Amino acid sequence: MEKSLETEHPIKAYGYAAKDTSGTFSPLTFSRRATGDNDVRFKVLYCGICHSDLHYAKNEWLASTYPLVPGHEIVGVVTEVGSKVEKFKVGETVGVGCLVGSCRSCQNCSNNLEQHCPKMIMTYASTNFDGTLTYGGYSDHMVSDEHFVLHWPDNLPLDSGAPLLCAGITTYSPLRHYGLDKPGMKIGIVGLGGLGHVAVKFAKAFGAEVTVFSTTPEKKEEALERLKADHFIVSKDVEQMQAATGTLDGILDTVSAPHPIAPFIDILKTAGKLVLVGVPEKPHELPAFPLILGRKIIGGSSIGGLRETQEMLVFCAMHGITSDIEVISIDYVNTAMDRLLKSDVRYRFVIDVANSIKAPLQT
Amino acid sequence: MEKSLETEHPIKAYGYAAKDTSGTFSPLTFSRRATGDNDVRFKVLYCGICHSDLHYAKNEWLASTYPLVPGHEIVGVVTEVGSKVEKFKVGETVGVGCLVGSCRSCQNCSNNLEQHCPKMIMTYASTNFDGTLTYGGYSDHMVSDEHFVLHWPDNLPLDSGAPLLCAGITTYSPLRHYGLDKPGMKIGIVGLGGLGHVAVKFAKAFGAEVTVFSTTPEKKEEALERLKADHFIVSKDVEQMQAATGTLDGILDTVSAPHPIAPFIDILKTAGKLVLVGVPEKPHELPAFPLILGRKIIGGSSIGGLRETQEMLVFCAMHGITSDIEVISIDYVNTAMDRLLKSDVRYRFVIDVANSIKAPLQT
Repeated sequence: MEKSLETEHPIKAYGYAAKDTSGTFSPLTFSRRATGDNDVRFKVLYCGICHSDLHYAKNEWLASTYPLVPGHEIVGVVTEVGSKVEKFKVGETVGVGCLVGSCRSCQNCSNNLEQHCPKMIMTYASTNFDGTLTYGGYSDHMVSDEHFVLHWPDNLPLDSGAPLLCAGITTYSPLRHYGLDKPGMKIGIVGLGGLGHVAVKFAKAFGAEVTVFSTTPEKKEEALERLKADHFIVSKDVEQMQAATGTLDGILDTVSAPHPIAPFIDILKTAGKLVLVGVPEKPHELPAFPLILGRKIIGGSSIGGLRETQEMLVFCAMHGITSDIEVISIDYVNTAMDRLLKSDVRYRFVIDVANSIKAPLQT
Repeated sequence: MEKSLETEHPIKAYGYAAKDTSGTFSPLTFSRRATGDNDVRFKVLYCGICHSDLHYAKNEWLASTYPLVPGHEIVGVVTEVGSKVEKFKVGETVGVGCLVGSCRSCQNCSNNLEQHCPKMIMTYASTNFDGTLTYGGYSDHMVSDEHFVLHWPDNLPLDSGAPLLCAGITTYSPLRHYGLDKPGMKIGIVGLGGLGHVAVKFAKAFGAEVTVFSTTPEKKEEALERLKADHFIVSKDVEQMQAATGTLDGILDTVSAPHPIAPFIDILKTAGKLVLVGVPEKPHELPAFPLILGRKIIGGSSIGGLRETQEMLVFCAMHGITSDIEVISIDYVNTAMDRLLKSDVRYRFVIDVANSIKAPLQT
């Protein structure tokens, strides 16, 4: 039947894995495929910790397989390229985000929307074309088809840039796609966490007048002074919310905790757009009347395609946009997850993989 | 204090009114203003019965005032024009829909979106700029600022054309605004009632491949053979619904009864659009994940501006689009409302006002 994890592929690999739904991680030896003609093999330098990693580790989205090596905000250095690889050279710094495969032929793939390909392969907890599982960036090295590997801009930091590969593109893409990227627009960002704080930076870089909505009044100073948002509204304060009625062109809602969306619809101008990128466990309550009366829309958005992700990295390098991070060693990951659950991080943990993982790179 | 209804304005008027929340209508004598410089006065010929009329009569939207003379699908003939009126002449056939006023200076008004003006005045149950209430088309005559009066195309029937002024524009505008009007598109229409049956006609006229969704299997023949829809799906049939997953570019949901919207989101293609024009009493349940994974949107739409309503009437005249109607006399209105509640009409009642109202036109 199936070969063991350590022998199913020819190249030994070493990482940290969730082995059950407990949400704890421990070392794992597994294996990765040999470098194919179109593959790029790279040593992992940094890997961001996304809240999805913990959702997957606990199988909270009912899509997990174990052992599960998370990580989809990965920066590394190329160690080997396949014979047909044209875009990358050994020694180059690269990034890999949430995707490592797609069919490359459907309409979405043709439109550079690989994230919407029905056969897309996620960086971890997904089944590769050869039938084996994918393992993410909490590991010593990775191998990926070059189409899903990104060039790392020279002046973009490796550690604080890593989270851009998920948190960055997840907020950049909807602001672009929904046309919320025009100078002078009035844009709201709901939630000041891993996604929200990067979203504020993008919106400011696009030239927007930015309002941050948070349930936590203590984040006001942070939002206004450090992130340079223009306004701060405590979203639980009915008076503050009502005073903002009809004022915003668009709102990006990054919150995954259950929360009412109707008040944010009211804050939109006519034809305003509320875009959801957070995924609460329960459905939202959506009153039809305010949507209808103002010809408003609610949209969703999921990461971005490869072309747009590359564009976003270049944009970040040009505008000095990175994530605010706390660098940790890989053996701190369980503590980091505990703190993540308590929102005790500003705003993203990034694992210094190369300097803290215990096994040597095997090539 | 306030003058009586019969004397607050100089011109006597006669209509049918709801006088309390019972939902029954009876004759009412009231008054209308003299023809102002920019006003068009017209004798009402036909007036469609919209379900909103009954909602308002019963104060189900908590916005009613009594006595309440409903009617916002009005076709008439001009009897007098003010000194500054340029667009209309005595004897011309005209229409008035849901609006009789707006500020004419805000951004929405400047963009020909009078329906989204914060000061818009509805045809009935609204307060006019002079502080008096508005009364609708279940009456012998009306008077309106010419900006809110529509030219009636020569070859558009007066009776079956009347419902276009609400049911028509309510479905035409969202198909246009959300770009669901391109030939070859796959469009779904949810609900085959007063709105839905006209929506099918518009979508077919735009060149779409049209799927009708209904909870009533018996409507299949009607949908396919008479309205020329291409497909019919019983929306309560899980298998039929699942077979349609990911197939439609857009769906116009005309249903005001409570119903799940998640299955319709699943039926959209990537970046597909679900547009709501029906208003259930309770909020919809909106799961975020399917919206996010497919970058789909849910939008709302409310009637249309005056320019677009005029454009719609011309489009209908060109394409032979009218509502399917049952013409009634005004003393049948209570029976009609009983039947409306049981969906016992295909698809719109239209009151032959001129031939059944009892008082003469007073000018």
